[in-house]
Amino acid sequence: MIDGSTPFEATDAALLDPQYRAALVDLFGVLAYGELGAFERLAADAAMAPRITDKAALAGMATAEYRHFLALRDRLTDLGVDPEQAMEPFRRPIDEFHAHTKPADWLEGLVKAYVGDGIALDFYREISAYVDPASRELVISTCEDLGQSAFVVDRVRSAIDADPRVAGRLALWGRRLVGEALSQAQRVAAERDALSTLLVGGTDRPGVDLAEIGRMLARLTENHSRRMQELGLAA
Amino acid sequence: MIDGSTPFEATDAALLDPQYRAALVDLFGVLAYGELGAFERLAADAAMAPRITDKAALAGMATAEYRHFLALRDRLTDLGVDPEQAMEPFRRPIDEFHAHTKPADWLEGLVKAYVGDGIALDFYREISAYVDPASRELVISTCEDLGQSAFVVDRVRSAIDADPRVAGRLALWGRRLVGEALSQAQRVAAERDALSTLLVGGTDRPGVDLAEIGRMLARLTENHSRRMQELGLAA
Repeated sequence: MIDGSTPFEATDAALLDPQYRAALVDLFGVLAYGELGAFERLAADAAMAPRITDKAALAGMATAEYRHFLALRDRLTDLGVDPEQAMEPFRRPIDEFHAHTKPADWLEGLVKAYVGDGIALDFYREISAYVDPASRELVISTCEDLGQSAFVVDRVRSAIDADPRVAGRLALWGRRLVGEALSQAQRVAAERDALSTLLVGGTDRPGVDLAEIGRMLARLTENHSRRMQELGLAA
Repeated sequence: MIDGSTPFEATDAALLDPQYRAALVDLFGVLAYGELGAFERLAADAAMAPRITDKAALAGMATAEYRHFLALRDRLTDLGVDPEQAMEPFRRPIDEFHAHTKPADWLEGLVKAYVGDGIALDFYREISAYVDPASRELVISTCEDLGQSAFVVDRVRSAIDADPRVAGRLALWGRRLVGEALSQAQRVAAERDALSTLLVGGTDRPGVDLAEIGRMLARLTENHSRRMQELGLAA
């Protein structure tokens, strides 16, 4: 993108470009392993649920993430690559993100699900502007609203109503989640050149300019703050 | 059942009998919470998987258990009861079973999935003989082969090939699983009169005789031994 107003749109023909294909394989690889990680995290949160209906709701969210994983894995197979190999480079950063942000209790799990999924979905939507139409459709389809946001907001707000001190602890937790996500994202960006070229461009393709990357980060940050507010938390 | 050859068959009209309805609510309650517990256990096992494809396979099994849970939960709602209330009496025994049989590693998780699901499915099939046709269809549908048995057998046998000492440890583990399952099952049978009447009969319905209960236990034990053998383990 040269003028900063509309993103560069990859066409289906872009798939013939090996650099673009490598970028797509990286993109679907990181998204697929991310969905598998989200499945595990939500299932583990379900185990901490105080009520059976809460447990069932979290388990339902987890199975939705698994459906997304299957779609992404199948697309990797369609691209002629081994899904396991495509996911492998992202296993360590994503596992480390989860290891460093293990919720201590049910509420921290809910905030992580809400805030983490929110950031992930924002990123999906941003990145979808830079890929070919078929890939965009797949990426957007993994952004389907799991319809559980209202559930999480209700549970977190009720907990704060019952004990306002909870809000301070959860606000700190939200900041820690973002910090850890950024540090792992930077690591991925530094290590995966192919993936980075989706944004910064390649030999034959223009990338977005720095101003646009700045605007993108601003949008991600604003949306995060809005979500924290919805939960009744300071961002 | 009087003569010990064919089980008593409840008809749809049996649903009008309050004692039979209470038994069904208990049955679907314990199965539903059992499926939710199986979901959690398999998802936790997925987190221990050494390879991404193994992780994905376990996550897929977990989501299948969740589908079964949904079908059972919906049937409870159809029966006019609150699913959460119907499951509640079985929460403690099932949670305790899992707490007392937490796999120490990936292989113990696989054996638990295989042996535990096997016993559960055998029990489903046995009990399905004593309920009305619509209930039987639901119970049987939750017995669908998840198609992952071959996967588990392969992984466990490969591990034993690589290190034969593993077999002794896993055989002990299998015995512990059965012991713990029996002790929780006895507790449920003692506490839930309604559920027990499905087998032992009620005021107006004949139950199975002791000899048939003995044969049922023999079948469950034989099938368990066969499954342990398939894994390459002494029962």
